[in-house]
Amino acid sequence: MLILGIDPGTIKTGFGIIKYEKNVLTYITSGVIKLPKIDNIPEKLGIIYDELFSLIKTHQPDEFSIETAFYGKNIQSTLKIGYARGVSLLAAVQNKIPISEYSPRAVKQSVVGKGAASKEQVQFMVLRLLNIVRPNITFDETDALAIAICHALRMGNISPKKGSWKDFIEKNPNLVIK
Amino acid sequence: MLILGIDPGTIKTGFGIIKYEKNVLTYITSGVIKLPKIDNIPEKLGIIYDELFSLIKTHQPDEFSIETAFYGKNIQSTLKIGYARGVSLLAAVQNKIPISEYSPRAVKQSVVGKGAASKEQVQFMVLRLLNIVRPNITFDETDALAIAICHALRMGNISPKKGSWKDFIEKNPNLVIK
Repeated sequence: MLILGIDPGTIKTGFGIIKYEKNVLTYITSGVIKLPKIDNIPEKLGIIYDELFSLIKTHQPDEFSIETAFYGKNIQSTLKIGYARGVSLLAAVQNKIPISEYSPRAVKQSVVGKGAASKEQVQFMVLRLLNIVRPNITFDETDALAIAICHALRMGNISPKKGSWKDFIEKNPNLVIK
Repeated sequence: MLILGIDPGTIKTGFGIIKYEKNVLTYITSGVIKLPKIDNIPEKLGIIYDELFSLIKTHQPDEFSIETAFYGKNIQSTLKIGYARGVSLLAAVQNKIPISEYSPRAVKQSVVGKGAASKEQVQFMVLRLLNIVRPNITFDETDALAIAICHALRMGNISPKKGSWKDFIEKNPNLVIK
């Protein structure tokens, strides 16, 4: 099963695709949709939608996971999150991909084992869980991959009830591909 | 020139198309995209987008006008306005239609002559300006038509500087088609 995770925004939109099979997570691809710095929201929405649509057509993910909107610093930024999420959800629904939403706290809890984890901790655990070394990977990518991983773990119900993922991996090396 | 006015929302999305030529406004069509009552935002966004896209393909409007987001009662409703506006703007930008935004106050000021006009006053003036009798027309439609009219008036610069539109029409009967 392929899971696409999305971290949408009108400045940058991160995406990541993982494969989840027999309780093993495999990295497929990830990236950042970079958007022009000019303040042209409709143009940015067109780019986000086109890029996601093309990504979906190329990889044919089975599942689409996205963070529940966290709320912007102000009304304008909340609206912009709404715009970017709106066109992302549209790309998913048009391709009939089931959509799951997780709060940022739930994602961090799943991946790091604590809901208040830092971006660095999320990144560390994402790279570890996917067994990849990518020195230049951005937080946008690891955040999007974390959302996909969270969905895999929730579906597979392999998340440890207590303790951190770091401990869990050490105790369950068979769950990480080499 | 054909102008499409949109009043987007995840409960109902109103639309109206008018023709604006030689300072004369003509009603072309209007309606409401009714959305299922279930709380499935992605499905609703798919319907809004598909209906608007199809409307644009059918009528080929030259201009797209939309209200500047007014802010929801709370963060969830602000996000929902963002979703609906996001997919509406996407339908416009994908069809390369120039987009104009007006605040609710500017729309009311243009159409009724006062920024704090009621929906009833807006409806009365929209029907009068377009010279149409439609007993069952909804506020969603007349609000969307008002946004299109506002854009026409701003482009044509025929808005009275002072006084209400009611006075203006009475003094300029040639501007209303019979």
